Amino acid sequence: MTRLAFAAPLAISLQAQADERPNIIFFLVDDFGWIETSLPFGEETYPRNRRFHTPNMERLAKRGTMLTNAYACSLSTPTRTSLMTGMNSAHSHITSFSSLYKDIVPDAIGGHPGSTNENLGDIFAHPKWNYNALCPAQFDNEQDRKTYGLNNTTYATPLPQLLRDSGYHTIHVGKAHWAPAGTPGSNPYNMGFVVNIAGAQNGHPKSYLPEENFGNLPGKGDYGSVMNMSQYYDSGIHLTEAITLEALKTLDNPIRQKQPFFLYFAHYTNHTPIQRDDRFVQRYLDEGQDEGEARYASMVEGMDKSLGDVLDYIDNKGIADNTVIIFYSDNGPHSVGGEKGGEMHTQAMPLREGKGSVYEGGIRVPMMVAWPGKVAPDTRINTPVVVEDFFPSFCELAGINNPETVQTRDGQSFVKLVTDGSQYVAKAAKEGKIKNQKEANAFEIPAEVGGLDPERDLIFHYPHQLRFEDQDDIDFMTAMRRGDWKLVYRMHTGELELYNLREDLGERNNLAPKHKEMVKSMAKDLGDQLRKWDASMPTVRATGKTVPLPDEI
Amino acid sequence: MTRLAFAAPLAISLQAQADERPNIIFFLVDDFGWIETSLPFGEETYPRNRRFHTPNMERLAKRGTMLTNAYACSLSTPTRTSLMTGMNSAHSHITSFSSLYKDIVPDAIGGHPGSTNENLGDIFAHPKWNYNALCPAQFDNEQDRKTYGLNNTTYATPLPQLLRDSGYHTIHVGKAHWAPAGTPGSNPYNMGFVVNIAGAQNGHPKSYLPEENFGNLPGKGDYGSVMNMSQYYDSGIHLTEAITLEALKTLDNPIRQKQPFFLYFAHYTNHTPIQRDDRFVQRYLDEGQDEGEARYASMVEGMDKSLGDVLDYIDNKGIADNTVIIFYSDNGPHSVGGEKGGEMHTQAMPLREGKGSVYEGGIRVPMMVAWPGKVAPDTRINTPVVVEDFFPSFCELAGINNPETVQTRDGQSFVKLVTDGSQYVAKAAKEGKIKNQKEANAFEIPAEVGGLDPERDLIFHYPHQLRFEDQDDIDFMTAMRRGDWKLVYRMHTGELELYNLREDLGERNNLAPKHKEMVKSMAKDLGDQLRKWDASMPTVRATGKTVPLPDEI
Repeated sequence: MTRLAFAAPLAISLQAQADERPNIIFFLVDDFGWIETSLPFGEETYPRNRRFHTPNMERLAKRGTMLTNAYACSLSTPTRTSLMTGMNSAHSHITSFSSLYKDIVPDAIGGHPGSTNENLGDIFAHPKWNYNALCPAQFDNEQDRKTYGLNNTTYATPLPQLLRDSGYHTIHVGKAHWAPAGTPGSNPYNMGFVVNIAGAQNGHPKSYLPEENFGNLPGKGDYGSVMNMSQYYDSGIHLTEAITLEALKTLDNPIRQKQPFFLYFAHYTNHTPIQRDDRFVQRYLDEGQDEGEARYASMVEGMDKSLGDVLDYIDNKGIADNTVIIFYSDNGPHSVGGEKGGEMHTQAMPLREGKGSVYEGGIRVPMMVAWPGKVAPDTRINTPVVVEDFFPSFCELAGINNPETVQTRDGQSFVKLVTDGSQYVAKAAKEGKIKNQKEANAFEIPAEVGGLDPERDLIFHYPHQLRFEDQDDIDFMTAMRRGDWKLVYRMHTGELELYNLREDLGERNNLAPKHKEMVKSMAKDLGDQLRKWDASMPTVRATGKTVPLPDEI
Repeated sequence: MTRLAFAAPLAISLQAQADERPNIIFFLVDDFGWIETSLPFGEETYPRNRRFHTPNMERLAKRGTMLTNAYACSLSTPTRTSLMTGMNSAHSHITSFSSLYKDIVPDAIGGHPGSTNENLGDIFAHPKWNYNALCPAQFDNEQDRKTYGLNNTTYATPLPQLLRDSGYHTIHVGKAHWAPAGTPGSNPYNMGFVVNIAGAQNGHPKSYLPEENFGNLPGKGDYGSVMNMSQYYDSGIHLTEAITLEALKTLDNPIRQKQPFFLYFAHYTNHTPIQRDDRFVQRYLDEGQDEGEARYASMVEGMDKSLGDVLDYIDNKGIADNTVIIFYSDNGPHSVGGEKGGEMHTQAMPLREGKGSVYEGGIRVPMMVAWPGKVAPDTRINTPVVVEDFFPSFCELAGINNPETVQTRDGQSFVKLVTDGSQYVAKAAKEGKIKNQKEANAFEIPAEVGGLDPERDLIFHYPHQLRFEDQDDIDFMTAMRRGDWKLVYRMHTGELELYNLREDLGERNNLAPKHKEMVKSMAKDLGDQLRKWDASMPTVRATGKTVPLPDEI
């Protein structure tokens, strides 16, 4: 018998064979408004921009391109499941946020047991929709259906699974919120992530504070308590900082192994509870902001610090040149509670309304893409992009052609837009065709250059009521953007509104009476698409009838 | 501007360069006694063996080799930190189990706030020891010391970090229990695991039951609640099954990527709470076992089912030939509480005492190694191995020569023993030199064949009291095995006992009066080693003096 020989470690051979596809860092912020940053996404710097200090967002913008017309859904789960599936939420039928609890629909206080769709809305009954939200397609079999007893669920092939299967090291950090506890979709591992830190069924952390164990105080925890972070209990380190430290640690391994990584870094911040970040709050109090506003601004700056740490990390590791960073928010700013201070419904100003609404305040979000050598630095792109575009974009970045998915996808890749498109913008700027921020926001990239038609229809569908009390500019609405035009359908009243976003960013001047043909045409196309998707619609309590589609009124 | 080209996926090139080091599955069971299986590790099948049904352990034994003299520490954290560090627990000063809470020492009810060392023991005060247990060496710096405020901590370079850095995909599933919450060592990610499922500071699950959310019922959770498993809430799937499902899922990725993996699969079972596994319990009730015994036996069979699932998985994936499976338990069977049924202190019979004790019942554990083509099937090895041997063994399996660690390690690799040694045994059996189980258990492998000296000293040190009430055969004891001989030092009385394990497995016949020179010699060597390690010793309350070492009495 001879002694066994062991193969040499892989490190050397892997270096020769390194996978050169880019790393992808998807930096997703929660409830973060387009306007809540010192980096102005608008054509001018608005007073509200000046309330915030986000130097690292400014730093990222200098490295890459800002998408000034980027859209998400108006709520968390619809956006996040769309990221996973590439489907419009009207198509997936995940049109509201998922509860902590299986089979329990969310309500005004966050989906607690006992709440039902019937609690909400005196005019409409809520539609049939997939409140158990997203489940990976691998669980769509008899055994698992029996085990989990799932109904009202969308089965789909999730994006991280495709990335992982193609050789990416897929890392989930932070908030998941794709499905309730008790369902496979609540667990990032089931989505195809190799690593999971702190992600589960919860849509917000029970607490950001280490002295409150991020919600895990014995006997006080619930499904909203943040997992995996017990080493930071009582450490003095705010959740936003703690998950940043953990996120960066997870990158050491794929960097060492020369394996491209997909870091889905989904901050819990700036969702409620609005808890001060002690590192940053004093500045805002000194500036005269009220307590709630200062607390919120300190959370934003904590998030911005995290972004800076990510940039420092990739610079120090020497991987910045082969790393795509995408900055995004899951919906507009929270504007219906008192925690954030200020006046309700104004947090997205100059945009109308906030989170939950299909008005711009609910859906237009800050987005940036940086990729040295590919994306032109310090540029702006005004071509609209929407959440369902991320799935094909990530696939394209990863070299995955024609991904096989059980679901039919809706989006289009924006990779050509942010690469060729931004270079086109840079060239125009160099030639003196763009001289200032206002002109940059107005400058158009032709479809044949950017790959995306600036006039394509983008649909936002919210057939629900957000809270017990009615929210006129949030509840039961659907909208479609086409170029500069936006059609808004108010289900409660059957009204159709039309706005020109180029002239009227705040959606105050309803042009429907003046442009009846355009309203009719857009309503028809919106109705057709919703019919095609069999989109969920509420029922009129008085008649029991389904609310008509926008072209049926 | 041209369209960007993307590199092709890595899969094809990686196949050509596959790392051929073996996969390692470390299947670690909790509180699982050497005798609590239908697979007899003793020289005969004892009555207690017949109470259990573990067909998959029998199946594994047929594939590989059984180590009939394998040792762990007598408690969880000492064993588990030794696995991470390669240090004897007397050397690391982690001599008891770590609490859920930083700076809180464990006590009879599991380390609840307010308990202190001073609560325990009327004769001795407990020693200074590292109750904050293990912390990865990377945190041994000024900033982290300040952040975490750690004292009474052992800093060491953890095994999984070395494996990961050498190219292994390192996966943690189940119980960690290396350090309290509020310290970096509580988190498997900090140990070098790339994946973590369900591991944290807790030494046992608050509940195994899905209907109790594994301890996460809202408002009832504590630091012992199991994390990451929310998709199984109310699923009807017992924790043991649930973590098995998750463990196997984590292997798909490294298999696909042709990356060797290290799966540290540490079952929570069979630790308390003793909760019935409905799949298996009826058989034991039908056999006339009492309720507690039947519950416990059903947990054991659930564990065995998990082992079978692992074997099925690697067979089905075609990776069995390049996978080393190591089966082990962290200490002897729980024998001081009533939950398990039966008579206290008898659960390890014919071995003396159980968990906590340095008598064989506390430290001798079931161990098996299977590795097709390398480890001879259906063999038994009686050369003693001990927990600190695992670190160098895993390193050798991974081809890591001379690992760099901040700690000085104590163990020796058993790889040559289980490969060459088992082949030597198989050859002897073929030649008719081993004819039955008794002869197999007695057959010796020379040191020059197996690489390990059967006479080397193995030390077990427990300078603590386990519970409020005194446990005569557990509290404040130290032992050393040398070949067939075992010296036991009772600190309370200053007595030295000597047993011949070959003749007296149950340690009933104290031969110290007959072999005074051997006692003196062994006590001297034990004392020397404990002095060298600066091992923790309790203090006599009456005098304030440190309890003398075994050669100082």
